[in-house]
Amino acid sequence: MFTVMRSVWEVFVLMFISVFSKSVEAKHTARMSLPVEGHCLSWRLAVEANNARAWRSIPIQCLFYVENYMLGGQYERDVNVVVQQIYQYMADMVPGEDGKDAWILDVDDTCLSNLCYYQGKRYGLDPFDPAAFKKWAMRASCPAIPAVLGLFQRLVESGFKVFLLTGRDDETLGTATIENLENQGFVGYERIILRKSEYRGKGAVFFKSEIRKQLNADGYRIRGNVGDQWSDLQGDFVGDRTFKIPNAMYFVP
Amino acid sequence: MFTVMRSVWEVFVLMFISVFSKSVEAKHTARMSLPVEGHCLSWRLAVEANNARAWRSIPIQCLFYVENYMLGGQYERDVNVVVQQIYQYMADMVPGEDGKDAWILDVDDTCLSNLCYYQGKRYGLDPFDPAAFKKWAMRASCPAIPAVLGLFQRLVESGFKVFLLTGRDDETLGTATIENLENQGFVGYERIILRKSEYRGKGAVFFKSEIRKQLNADGYRIRGNVGDQWSDLQGDFVGDRTFKIPNAMYFVP
Repeated sequence: MFTVMRSVWEVFVLMFISVFSKSVEAKHTARMSLPVEGHCLSWRLAVEANNARAWRSIPIQCLFYVENYMLGGQYERDVNVVVQQIYQYMADMVPGEDGKDAWILDVDDTCLSNLCYYQGKRYGLDPFDPAAFKKWAMRASCPAIPAVLGLFQRLVESGFKVFLLTGRDDETLGTATIENLENQGFVGYERIILRKSEYRGKGAVFFKSEIRKQLNADGYRIRGNVGDQWSDLQGDFVGDRTFKIPNAMYFVP
Repeated sequence: MFTVMRSVWEVFVLMFISVFSKSVEAKHTARMSLPVEGHCLSWRLAVEANNARAWRSIPIQCLFYVENYMLGGQYERDVNVVVQQIYQYMADMVPGEDGKDAWILDVDDTCLSNLCYYQGKRYGLDPFDPAAFKKWAMRASCPAIPAVLGLFQRLVESGFKVFLLTGRDDETLGTATIENLENQGFVGYERIILRKSEYRGKGAVFFKSEIRKQLNADGYRIRGNVGDQWSDLQGDFVGDRTFKIPNAMYFVP
């Protein structure tokens, strides 16, 4: 009798453990069962498809969703699939012997991840804090985004000229950014172009279009252009093909 | 003793029912727990962000994912969020008194849904079948996509000139398409433009750019442009802003 009672008890304990372990697993595994998660997925899709623009912070109801997205593996999967698409596009592309076949890569959240910083800013729920971001960037300790580092290295090895084009301020963040890129393995690029004083206060589309126009005038053929913001990929001379790396934490106009 | 045994049995039956009912619920509720679902979500994101291009069918491992996506509510949610973004953009937009403020809407899977047809084509896993699609379109029985019908009506009521621009063949599908739009409530548009013989065999970007160029030459200001394909939204005179309606079933170059 006691043995059977114990069995019943054990079954309940097992059920409890099963349910509990699922909820823990769910914490950092993207799941969709609540309407809010479905809504936040739609919002994230709207961001990536360039339907949602000029947003200043993530929707408050999506805080846990974005946290789970960034930490639970889906963000990494999404980046990896974009990079696979780039490899497919590159598959039969051979750089010309004149050394003018170029790729443009953005820096923040394309080459280098600011996730650690945005974890302290509630994954983009807190409004942008230029002073705190500057302090973070000065530390030169952003980790590389692994799939994009792999892409960068393959581009360099294949003989493409890689230009790193970033809206970071040249005067204040130039040294730290170059150091950070180097300590993360971004070595062998043709040139890094930061925002010079003449472009201060200008939108990213304007600034980056101007730079691409100059590269074009210098005879470069922009074969591909990779960035986490649509403002990296729109405007003039955007390149033969553009690739949008996901970013569910912030929007740069 | 038997009572307790029965309790144990009941607990197992309850556990079985609980697990079984969850799997049935999961059938049409988007959930993510399997790696394949995470991968298919990344693929779908890559499609919507215009990173994945020129695909001929959905990935075979994503068949059940796309089915769940289309039938489980997430597709509808995604469309609704895009239309909400359009309403936000339109909020303080008043059409000019010259009657030249225009919107362009695509037809297939923007105004009218072909989901019923694609259910018989394994949600886009089967390759495109022009004869079968023509037969389907001739029936003039595509249902409206509710959120887009609402948008259409609001645009017309607000005084915008709405142009329906579709790659469907004018000669063979013109009558059926106009009938279908009317029986679904798409009434009051300025003009429907189908593909005339001179544009047969041309890509959608070329055909639609040429038409938009003519509208522009006629003095229309394209305030917004809505389509489920990036080929609706790229090229020349794309409009002040473009909106991508999701489509995880097929790609039109």
